[in-house]
Amino acid sequence: MKLTEMSKAQLAQFKEQVQGEYDKFKTQNLKLNMARGKPSAEQLDLTEGLLSAVTKNSDCYAEDGTDCRNYGGLDGLPEAKKLFAPMLGVAPEELIVCGNSSLNIMYDTIAKFMLFGTGDGEKPWKDCGKIKWLCPVPGYDRHFLVTEKMGFEMINIPMDENGPDMDMIEKLCAEDESIKGIWCVPMYANPTGITYSDEVVKRFAAMKPKAPDFKIFWDNAYCIHHLTDTPDSLLNILDECEKAGNPDRVYLFASTSKITYSGAGVAMLASSAKNVEYIKSMLNAQTIGYDKLNQLRHVRFFKDYEGLVQHMDKHRQVIAPKFSVVLDALESEIAPLGIGEWKKPNGGYFISFDALDGCAKRICELCKEAGVVLTGAGATYPYGKDPHDSNIRIAPTYPPVHELELAVKLFTVAVKLASAEKLLEK
Amino acid sequence: MKLTEMSKAQLAQFKEQVQGEYDKFKTQNLKLNMARGKPSAEQLDLTEGLLSAVTKNSDCYAEDGTDCRNYGGLDGLPEAKKLFAPMLGVAPEELIVCGNSSLNIMYDTIAKFMLFGTGDGEKPWKDCGKIKWLCPVPGYDRHFLVTEKMGFEMINIPMDENGPDMDMIEKLCAEDESIKGIWCVPMYANPTGITYSDEVVKRFAAMKPKAPDFKIFWDNAYCIHHLTDTPDSLLNILDECEKAGNPDRVYLFASTSKITYSGAGVAMLASSAKNVEYIKSMLNAQTIGYDKLNQLRHVRFFKDYEGLVQHMDKHRQVIAPKFSVVLDALESEIAPLGIGEWKKPNGGYFISFDALDGCAKRICELCKEAGVVLTGAGATYPYGKDPHDSNIRIAPTYPPVHELELAVKLFTVAVKLASAEKLLEK
Repeated sequence: MKLTEMSKAQLAQFKEQVQGEYDKFKTQNLKLNMARGKPSAEQLDLTEGLLSAVTKNSDCYAEDGTDCRNYGGLDGLPEAKKLFAPMLGVAPEELIVCGNSSLNIMYDTIAKFMLFGTGDGEKPWKDCGKIKWLCPVPGYDRHFLVTEKMGFEMINIPMDENGPDMDMIEKLCAEDESIKGIWCVPMYANPTGITYSDEVVKRFAAMKPKAPDFKIFWDNAYCIHHLTDTPDSLLNILDECEKAGNPDRVYLFASTSKITYSGAGVAMLASSAKNVEYIKSMLNAQTIGYDKLNQLRHVRFFKDYEGLVQHMDKHRQVIAPKFSVVLDALESEIAPLGIGEWKKPNGGYFISFDALDGCAKRICELCKEAGVVLTGAGATYPYGKDPHDSNIRIAPTYPPVHELELAVKLFTVAVKLASAEKLLEK
Repeated sequence: MKLTEMSKAQLAQFKEQVQGEYDKFKTQNLKLNMARGKPSAEQLDLTEGLLSAVTKNSDCYAEDGTDCRNYGGLDGLPEAKKLFAPMLGVAPEELIVCGNSSLNIMYDTIAKFMLFGTGDGEKPWKDCGKIKWLCPVPGYDRHFLVTEKMGFEMINIPMDENGPDMDMIEKLCAEDESIKGIWCVPMYANPTGITYSDEVVKRFAAMKPKAPDFKIFWDNAYCIHHLTDTPDSLLNILDECEKAGNPDRVYLFASTSKITYSGAGVAMLASSAKNVEYIKSMLNAQTIGYDKLNQLRHVRFFKDYEGLVQHMDKHRQVIAPKFSVVLDALESEIAPLGIGEWKKPNGGYFISFDALDGCAKRICELCKEAGVVLTGAGATYPYGKDPHDSNIRIAPTYPPVHELELAVKLFTVAVKLASAEKLLEK
C-alpha cells in the first residue's frame, strides 16, 4: 500500500514500526561514509602495474626522445594524446593532456576567461559586470562551487531523461547576454545517470546565445564508465558544433581519476584547435608544464585506447553489483510505498534518489545520526538549495558490499520514517 | 690590454683576428642549447630510486592510513610537510605541499588575488584599477611573464650584491598604493646568484607600503642549491615579518624541480598560518587535491630533510665543475680585456654576465648563428627590455662538460667580437 494512500492511523502505526527499526540501527554504532563518489580500494587495486611501469632512468624517455624527467612540453606527450583522444572523440591537436585534476582545469579555464577573456575578441569576463551561468539540476556540487566562488549568478535548469531543458536554455540565452556558459555532465550525468539525447546535443551545438562568448563546459567525466552490456552513447558535440558553424563553443573535460587513481591520474581538456591554441598560449605563462612521467605511466600501462576500455570492464565487475544492492533495496523497500523515485543508470557513479518533497534533509539527518554519512541534501543544487528538498545523491562505489547493504538498509528505513513524519504533518 | 684602451687600429686588428676565430666556429655546425636552467641527464639520473619507492598497492598508504591513490587532502601529506618544512624554515601549518610546478602556484596565487583579493579585507585586485609590480633586475623571465600577462605595470628595481635597492622600494611603495607586490628570488638569485643580506630581509619585513595588501612573492627556488663549502645563508623572512608586525606580508615558494625531476617534482607554498588557511579555503573550489602519490615517493626516497640535503651534494658534484668551466673561461678570456662583468655564485643555476652596454643582443645573435642558443638577451628584464642591452644569463648545468667547453669558448669569442664592433662604432 502506498504511504500517500494511508489513513492517519495507518501512517502512525507504520511510523511507530519504522521508528523501532531505526532505533535498532542507532544501537549498532555504525560509521559508514557514502558522501562522495570515490572508488573503493578494490577498484584502486585494479591499477596495480601503473606505478611500476616507469621506475628506472631508462624508462623515462618518450617516443620522440623527450626526457620526461626534465622541463619541456605544455600540451602533453604525443603518445598520451594518442591514448586519450579516442576517449573524447577528438583529434590529438584538439586535446591537451594535463595534470591530476579535471576540476582544476575547469576552474582554471573559467579563471582564464575571467582574467583574459575567451579569445573570441570579447572582453574579459571580469569586465562584463554580472555574469550568469546555467546549472542543470540536480548536478555536480563541485561544479556549482566553482561558479559560486566566481560570483556568477547560477540559474537552475531542470533535467529530464534526455538532458537539460533545451527550450528553457535556448530562450534564456537568446535574451540575456550576461549568460556566459553552462555546466554539463553529458554522459551518465552526476547524479541522475542519464545521457544527453542526440537532439539535446544538436540543439546545444546550434543554439543562438546572445553572448558571443557563450561557452559550454562539457565534463565528460564518465564517458567510458559503463555499467551494462548495452551502454549509452553520446553524440560528439565538437563535431556537431563544427557542423552548426559554432566550432569554438564547447570545452570538453575528462580525467582518469576514476579509471586509475583519484588524485594521481591524468586530466584532459579538448576543444577546437583554435581554442586549444588559445589555452596553450596562456599555459606558457602559468606553468612549467604538466607531469609527463605520470602521463608516460598511463601510456605504458594501458598501451592503447582498447587497453583503457578493457580496464573499465574490471571496474564494472566490481561496482555493478554495488549498484544492484542499492537498486534492489530501493525496489523492494521503497517502490511499493510510493515514497521515492529513481532511475537505473547505465553507467557513472551515482543513483539519484528523489524523496517526497521536504524529506531529503530529514533523511540525511536520520542517516547521519545513525552513523551513515550521505552527500548532504541540497548538494546537488547551486548554493546547496534544493527548492523541493527532495534530491539525494547515492554513491555506492566506495563501501565494501557488506557495509553498503547495511547502509542502504538504513537509508530505506530513514526514507520511510521521514516520509511518514512528513505525511503525518499534513 | 683592455679593449677600451685600444686605438682604433688596434681594435680593428683585434676584431679581424677574433672574426677569424668566430668564422671557424661557424664551420663546425654546432647545435647546443644553453637557453634554460635545466638539470642535465646526469643530474636526473641521481634520483633513480624515487620512482621505484612506491610501486605496489601496499606501498600507497600514508603514515596516517590515507590511501594516496584516492581522493582527499588539500594541503599535502603530513609526512611531506614534515620533509619540506625545514627547507623553507617554516612550521608544517605554514606550508601547503602542492603539485609539480611552483611557477603555477605563483601564477595561481596572483590569479586568486586578482579574482578574490588577498584575504586582508581589501578589494580583489581586478577591481583596483591599474596595478604595479616591482621587479628586481636582472631577474627571472617567467616571473615577469606572469605579471605581464596579468596586465600589471612592471617597475625595474636595480640589484646589487645585497639584493634589490631597498631605498627605492621603500620610497616607491610608501607613495603609491597601486604597487601591490614584488618578485624576489632571495637566495642565489636568478640570474645574479647573490643572496639577500640580513638587512635587506629585515627592511622587507618592516617596510610600510601604502597598499595594505602589498605582498612579497619570495621564490626560494635555490634555497638548498649550494655550490661551495661556504654556502650563503638567508634570514628567515617569515620570522622577520612576524617580528615586524607584518605576519601576512610574504608568500614563500619552492619546489623539487631541480632536486628530483623538473616537471615531475613537488612544489610548495608557505606563508603565515592565516594566509595558508585563506589559500586552503579557495583550493577547495579549485581542485580535488594534489598528487599524493608523488609526495609519498619523495618522502620514501629522501626519508628526512637530512636526506634531501645530502642529495644536493650529489648535484653539486655534477654541476660545480660546469660553473668552473664557465668562470675559468670568462676569467682567462674576458677579464683581461675589461669587456664584461660577472660574479662567482655560491649556489643556484646561473652566471649573470654583463657585457659592455649595447652588446648583449649582438652576442646572443652571434652565438645563435654559430649554433649555440643562449637565453635571449633582454629576457632577464620585464617585457624583454634590458635598458642597457647588457645582461646575459648563462645556464651551465644542462650541456655535458665537453659541449659546455665548446659553447663557452664560442661565447667568449662572441663577446670579444661584439665588443670590438661596438667600440669601433664610437
